Amino acid sequence: MTGRVLLTGASGFIGRAAIGPLCEAGFEVHAVARRHVDAPAEVRWHRVDLLDREQMRVLVNVVEPSHLLHFAWYAEPGKYWTARENLDWLGASLVLLQAFSRSGGRRVVMAGTCAEYEWKDGLCDESSTPLVPSTLYGMCKHALNEVLGVYSQQYGLSSAWGRIFFPYGPHEQSSRLVPSVICALLQGQPALCSSGEQVRDFIHVGDVANAFVALLGSNIDGAVNIGSGQGVAVKEIAERIGARLGRPDLLHFGARAATEAEPPFVVADVRRLEQEMKWRPATNLDAGLATTIDWWRGELSRRSDLHPLKHRSERK
Amino acid sequence: MTGRVLLTGASGFIGRAAIGPLCEAGFEVHAVARRHVDAPAEVRWHRVDLLDREQMRVLVNVVEPSHLLHFAWYAEPGKYWTARENLDWLGASLVLLQAFSRSGGRRVVMAGTCAEYEWKDGLCDESSTPLVPSTLYGMCKHALNEVLGVYSQQYGLSSAWGRIFFPYGPHEQSSRLVPSVICALLQGQPALCSSGEQVRDFIHVGDVANAFVALLGSNIDGAVNIGSGQGVAVKEIAERIGARLGRPDLLHFGARAATEAEPPFVVADVRRLEQEMKWRPATNLDAGLATTIDWWRGELSRRSDLHPLKHRSERK
Repeated sequence: MTGRVLLTGASGFIGRAAIGPLCEAGFEVHAVARRHVDAPAEVRWHRVDLLDREQMRVLVNVVEPSHLLHFAWYAEPGKYWTARENLDWLGASLVLLQAFSRSGGRRVVMAGTCAEYEWKDGLCDESSTPLVPSTLYGMCKHALNEVLGVYSQQYGLSSAWGRIFFPYGPHEQSSRLVPSVICALLQGQPALCSSGEQVRDFIHVGDVANAFVALLGSNIDGAVNIGSGQGVAVKEIAERIGARLGRPDLLHFGARAATEAEPPFVVADVRRLEQEMKWRPATNLDAGLATTIDWWRGELSRRSDLHPLKHRSERK
Repeated sequence: MTGRVLLTGASGFIGRAAIGPLCEAGFEVHAVARRHVDAPAEVRWHRVDLLDREQMRVLVNVVEPSHLLHFAWYAEPGKYWTARENLDWLGASLVLLQAFSRSGGRRVVMAGTCAEYEWKDGLCDESSTPLVPSTLYGMCKHALNEVLGVYSQQYGLSSAWGRIFFPYGPHEQSSRLVPSVICALLQGQPALCSSGEQVRDFIHVGDVANAFVALLGSNIDGAVNIGSGQGVAVKEIAERIGARLGRPDLLHFGARAATEAEPPFVVADVRRLEQEMKWRPATNLDAGLATTIDWWRGELSRRSDLHPLKHRSERK
C-alpha cells in the first residue's frame, strides 16, 4: 500500500495524529494546514487556505495526490454545532472532492461524525440507524457523505467515510471534557461537572487516526463507525481521572446542568470496523487517560493560558 | 403579500415563467440571469455569475432582498443528471443561502426535484417516500434541502422547497420530449419514440411558476411536491400531440429503446399542495399542449436551428 496522500486538517486534533501512521504505512504525505506541527522530516507542508477555491485547486493540481484524507472543518468548541461556517466547509469539501477527482485521485476518505445519526437510537449502526442530524454540523457532514457516495459511483472513485465518535487524547481543545477535568485537578481546582449519567463511546485519538489510515489503505466503501464500541458514563471518565490523580474530592457532579440536547446513550456499533476491516483499538481507556494526563502535565508546565474552570461539555 | 424578491435562474424555463406572477403578487422583482428575457418594465435585471461568490455576495448586499426564489442550477439536457457541475451549484446555493440570511432575508423557496425520491416507489409523497436519489443531480438537490431545513431552524429563516415533477410548455429546451415531438410533427418529420409506457406527472410550466409564487407568499415549511397529481403515459402525450396536429402517422413508438434508468411510474402526491396551500393547477393537459404547440409554431417560423430528430427522453 503506497501512494501520495493529501492530508487536510493536518495541524488539528485528529489530523496531526494521522501523520505518523500515514508515514509508517508508506505514504508520501502532503500535509495541508494553517500551521506546521511536529512531524517526521519527510512530510511536505502546504500552508493553504482551503476556503480559497483557487488556492485549493492549484494545490491539488501541483501535488496530484492518489489518496485524500480529509479532516479539515470548522471546529471551534461551543460554536461548531450551529455555526454558519459549516456551510462554507461543506462547499469547500465539494470543491476539494472535485479537484481531487479531476486531477486523477483514486481513493478518498473523509471524516464524518456520530452526530449524523438520530441520537435517540442509542447504539449507532451504519446500515440501520436513521440519519437525522439535529445540528447544522451533523447535517452538513451528512450531506457531504451523501454527495460523496453518488459522486464516487458516477466517477469511478473509491471512497469511504469514517464517523468519529468521542475522541480524547493529547492536543484536544482544552475547554472540552477530558482536558478540562484533567487540567482542573492537576492545578488543584474543582472540576464542575454535570451529573455525568450520559454514556458515550470514547476512543483515543491515536486509535481514531490509525483507524482512518487503515480505512484509507483498504477498499472498503461507504460509512464506517470509528469508535471503541464501549459505552462509558461521563461520570466514570471523570472518576477515573480523579482516582489516577488522587483528587476525587475535586469532582463536583451536578454542579452544572446537563444541556437538553444531551442524549443519554451514544455508542458505536463497530461490526464493520471489526469484521470487515479487522481492526480494533489498541489503547484501552485507562492507558489512554494515563498518557493524556502525562501530556497535559507537560503542557501545563509550558503554558500559562489554560483556565480549567471554563470547560463546556460539548455534548459529551 | 409584498416584499423584494431575488429571483435566480430568471431567464430559464421555469424562472422566466415566474416573473409575471411575482409582479402580479406585488413583489419588487430583482431578476438574476445571464441574459435578459421579455418581462414587465419594472423588473430589475442583474447580470451576475452566481458561481462567482464575490459577485453573488455583492449582489445580495446591494439588493437586500426580503424573499429569495432560487431556480438557478446547471440544466444542460442530457448532461445534468450526472454532471460534476451539480457540486458547483450546490456550493453556490449554500453561499447564496448564507448571504441572503446574513443580509436580513426572511423567506426563501428553492427548487427541488422529483428525482430526490426513490423512484421505484411510484406515487411520491413528501413525508413517507424514501429520499434515495440515484443521480448526482437528485442527490445535490436533496443535500441542499437538508441543509436548508436545519439552517432555517437555527437561524430563524422561513423556508420551503418545491419538488418539481415533469414541467412542459413554452421555452422548454427543444431536445426534450414534448418540444421534440411537436417540432418533428410541425415539420412533417417522423418522431422516434420509446414504447412510451412510462407514466409521468406532467404539469404546465405556468402552473409550476404559479405554485412557486404561492409557496413563496405562504408560510408553509419544508418540501412540497409541485405536480398535477395526474399520471399520463408518455405515449399518450405523443398521441395527443399527433391528434392535435393531424399527424399521428409520424409517431414511431418503439423506435428508441427506453433507458434502463427509466422507472415505470413517477407521479406526485399533491395533498400538501391542495390541502395546505389550497392550490390547484389551472391548465389541463389539452389546453397546455395547445398553447405549447402554438408557441412552437411561432418559434419555428423565427428559428432555423431546431433539429427535431435529435430529441432525447431525459427520463421523461
